[in-house]
Amino acid sequence: MDINVDMGEAFGAWPGGPDEAMLRAATSANVACGFHAGDPRTMARTVDLCRRLGRNVGAHPSYPDLVGFGRRAMAATPEEVRTDVLYQLGALDAFCRGAGVRMRHVKGHGAIYNVAVKDAPTARAMAEAVVAFDKTLWFFALPGTLLGEAGQAAGLRVAWEAFADRAVRRDGTLVPRGQPGALITDPETAAARAVRIAREGVVVPADGGEPIPWRADTICVHSDTPGAPEIAAAVRRALEAAGVEVRPLGE
Amino acid sequence: MDINVDMGEAFGAWPGGPDEAMLRAATSANVACGFHAGDPRTMARTVDLCRRLGRNVGAHPSYPDLVGFGRRAMAATPEEVRTDVLYQLGALDAFCRGAGVRMRHVKGHGAIYNVAVKDAPTARAMAEAVVAFDKTLWFFALPGTLLGEAGQAAGLRVAWEAFADRAVRRDGTLVPRGQPGALITDPETAAARAVRIAREGVVVPADGGEPIPWRADTICVHSDTPGAPEIAAAVRRALEAAGVEVRPLGE
Amino acid sequence: MDINVDMGEAFGAWPGGPDEAMLRAATSANVACGFHAGDPRTMARTVDLCRRLGRNVGAHPSYPDLVGFGRRAMAATPEEVRTDVLYQLGALDAFCRGAGVRMRHVKGHGAIYNVAVKDAPTARAMAEAVVAFDKTLWFFALPGTLLGEAGQAAGLRVAWEAFADRAVRRDGTLVPRGQPGALITDPETAAARAVRIAREGVVVPADGGEPIPWRADTICVHSDTPGAPEIAAAVRRALEAAGVEVRPLGE
Amino acid sequence: MDINVDMGEAFGAWPGGPDEAMLRAATSANVACGFHAGDPRTMARTVDLCRRLGRNVGAHPSYPDLVGFGRRAMAATPEEVRTDVLYQLGALDAFCRGAGVRMRHVKGHGAIYNVAVKDAPTARAMAEAVVAFDKTLWFFALPGTLLGEAGQAAGLRVAWEAFADRAVRRDGTLVPRGQPGALITDPETAAARAVRIAREGVVVPADGGEPIPWRADTICVHSDTPGAPEIAAAVRRALEAAGVEVRPLGE
Repeated sequence: MDINVDMGEAFGAWPGGPDEAMLRAATSANVACGFHAGDPRTMARTVDLCRRLGRNVGAHPSYPDLVGFGRRAMAATPEEVRTDVLYQLGALDAFCRGAGVRMRHVKGHGAIYNVAVKDAPTARAMAEAVVAFDKTLWFFALPGTLLGEAGQAAGLRVAWEAFADRAVRRDGTLVPRGQPGALITDPETAAARAVRIAREGVVVPADGGEPIPWRADTICVHSDTPGAPEIAAAVRRALEAAGVEVRPLGE
Repeated sequence: MDINVDMGEAFGAWPGGPDEAMLRAATSANVACGFHAGDPRTMARTVDLCRRLGRNVGAHPSYPDLVGFGRRAMAATPEEVRTDVLYQLGALDAFCRGAGVRMRHVKGHGAIYNVAVKDAPTARAMAEAVVAFDKTLWFFALPGTLLGEAGQAAGLRVAWEAFADRAVRRDGTLVPRGQPGALITDPETAAARAVRIAREGVVVPADGGEPIPWRADTICVHSDTPGAPEIAAAVRRALEAAGVEVRPLGE
Repeated sequence: MDINVDMGEAFGAWPGGPDEAMLRAATSANVACGFHAGDPRTMARTVDLCRRLGRNVGAHPSYPDLVGFGRRAMAATPEEVRTDVLYQLGALDAFCRGAGVRMRHVKGHGAIYNVAVKDAPTARAMAEAVVAFDKTLWFFALPGTLLGEAGQAAGLRVAWEAFADRAVRRDGTLVPRGQPGALITDPETAAARAVRIAREGVVVPADGGEPIPWRADTICVHSDTPGAPEIAAAVRRALEAAGVEVRPLGE
Repeated sequence: MDINVDMGEAFGAWPGGPDEAMLRAATSANVACGFHAGDPRTMARTVDLCRRLGRNVGAHPSYPDLVGFGRRAMAATPEEVRTDVLYQLGALDAFCRGAGVRMRHVKGHGAIYNVAVKDAPTARAMAEAVVAFDKTLWFFALPGTLLGEAGQAAGLRVAWEAFADRAVRRDGTLVPRGQPGALITDPETAAARAVRIAREGVVVPADGGEPIPWRADTICVHSDTPGAPEIAAAVRRALEAAGVEVRPLGE
């Protein structure tokens, strides 16, 4: 099982999250590419941190919305999505080349990910950008969504994603941020969820009922949840204690 | 002799220059990378235009100054210059990969080029960015400047540059924009200068005196001079008529 | 009848529209405030042009989307809309103070106007910004929309708007840009429409049927339609020939 | 004696400094206006905080350099400086109007202040912007500088400024940030300096020698120094204990 975390979300004089602590627990880093966070100096430092800790680097492209941290949906055309994502993939790749590491995956950030999950043209545009750039990159997607379908249809390797620290509903969608219980902040609860996902392929929905199936190749732990490093560390420890091998996605 | 032109300097709803007409006369295109001009759609279109016309694509990185079109010097640290340039090289390269073409050269835009010509730390930072990205790229520089020295010291292939449409002074510097006579707008005058540069390796300074030596591997024709396409076409015709082979820089 | 035109939509080195020609035909100018177009130099020049020609200055606030020219809807919260609009009103007002003129009206630009027409929280947020800034400003709105209602509910003077050069549908909405016939580019056709709006308070819908009522205090002529200055001039001439007094909205 | 602090230097999702704690010790707030920090939501909240605590609001305009936090000098023309400052004054004023408070002063931020201190055209451009906007605003300047002269020549009320937490040199300039000893981080040392400035009009230079005269109407305590709230509180307490009345600049 891969553990992925967002990373490099500083900007200029403003700080990012607890990157090194998060990265110690994780195997893959989703690195901000400048459109919602991540100026060039931050990108260089973040890629270098991943290199030093031996973690996989992936791109974390966003809508162009620095002031909104990429969390606001925009009526962008597929061509705008495709070229904005392509631009960001290339920008991050330059720092990978500079550091002598290879980019391994792509995970949309914030609103562009949430829109792509439900909107086929956006999903296809993201997949097309990745195909144009590097067909071997892992394409992160929520299981059962148009985003995953678009990745598969484009011939990409899709890494199905689960969230250790986000409640889900019976229909397989996330409880929206801002609703009560959306975030799971207790490390042991998050860790126990991660273990069931990894070992049984199920998750218990917040709105009651039976566990629902949830295939996952990678488990996300958010970096901006209170106590995020403790959650990430607990998830990793629990997975390892349960005999789940924590390792990056394969070549 | 290579002929280079700036290209892709539109932004969003705002138009760029006469790109296709300029490119027909040129062999190399310096493509804006988003910091002074060139949003991702424009970059995609511009790289595609170069591909269709079979012209070489190069990056045209700038200080981050959209409102100032990259023409204002900034007190950027070498680390800022290095990472800003690296970011832009990567961003453009993504569109090259998407279009199946290779990036061939790098030429600084506006103020970053003018500063790098005279400021060793900036010059070195630009060269380091190119080395980190791709050591085989041609590195454009004014002859006799710190920028060219930095490129050579870093092990890059330096393409020495002359300007068909800019007056120069006895000391080998350009007459600053805004001063009378700085721009040469008569196509035949520009063309005649280009021929002397290519065949004799000299240019006649605007402040009088003997022709000065000017080694050039590439001749720039600016896209924003009035009548730019006519100047570019005249330069190409005159070079060819004088028996100078107009072709891109070698592999 | 007031005639309003968008203005000051240059940015940095990129040109705007035919401002002076448009303004000669108009009585009110909607001046870009920096979020979709209009850097500070452009704003200063534009306000000065209005002062010289004796035209009324109004603010033309937008979503923060320079690369999309403010034409893309964004999932902005009401607080984001309110404060973004307030910021832009103040920024433009500074240039009015500098030029010794008074700001007279507010008209949303592009997507923020189109969203506010149908979305009550956005409409209210725009009205709240204007109330907070200056309750005496005219608040431009399409008749029969939530935007107009929000302005009235907030105690603002609403100037109902019609478009000389945009086709409308039986339901009172505009034919979306990009659909055939959305733009009316023949000056005489646009002028005849303006006269019927001004004299009879009706407009003929593009999808057939009877003329529909359309109350208008101000008629917009777009600056980016091909032949815009001719359309604007024809509209003004036709209104005056029909005995309609062309004059700015009252104090 | 006035005590001024920088404020509202958050941006979007990124946090600012300890604003409320700083403001409790201060009498005047220099509020970021969006060019180096301070998005519209932050500006609204910051002005509201000043209103609740009864502190004076002033503008803190900057070069347009978000990624560099306004700390990098730029080769801006006087017209660029004048209009950039005017834009920011207006933007902040909108929030003052919304909150029912009056803007009272202007203090340049970072590089624009440092350049204006030594460069007459920049200094004059800043003063012209303030005159165009509101001649009654206090204009903050380092004593003995071109900035102060420009303010006086333009007919503005100049508030001479001293820094409690920055070392100065015999020639009356600040020890540059980054040099050893540039920042004074011990609260009692800073407080003692403030008292000598207020009572004796002198400051002891870091490079030795006699105390030099330093006229001050306002003392700045930086918000980004480690322990800034303790320094600010100590300065205020010490001034009051020494019988210096701490109060905002007069009407």
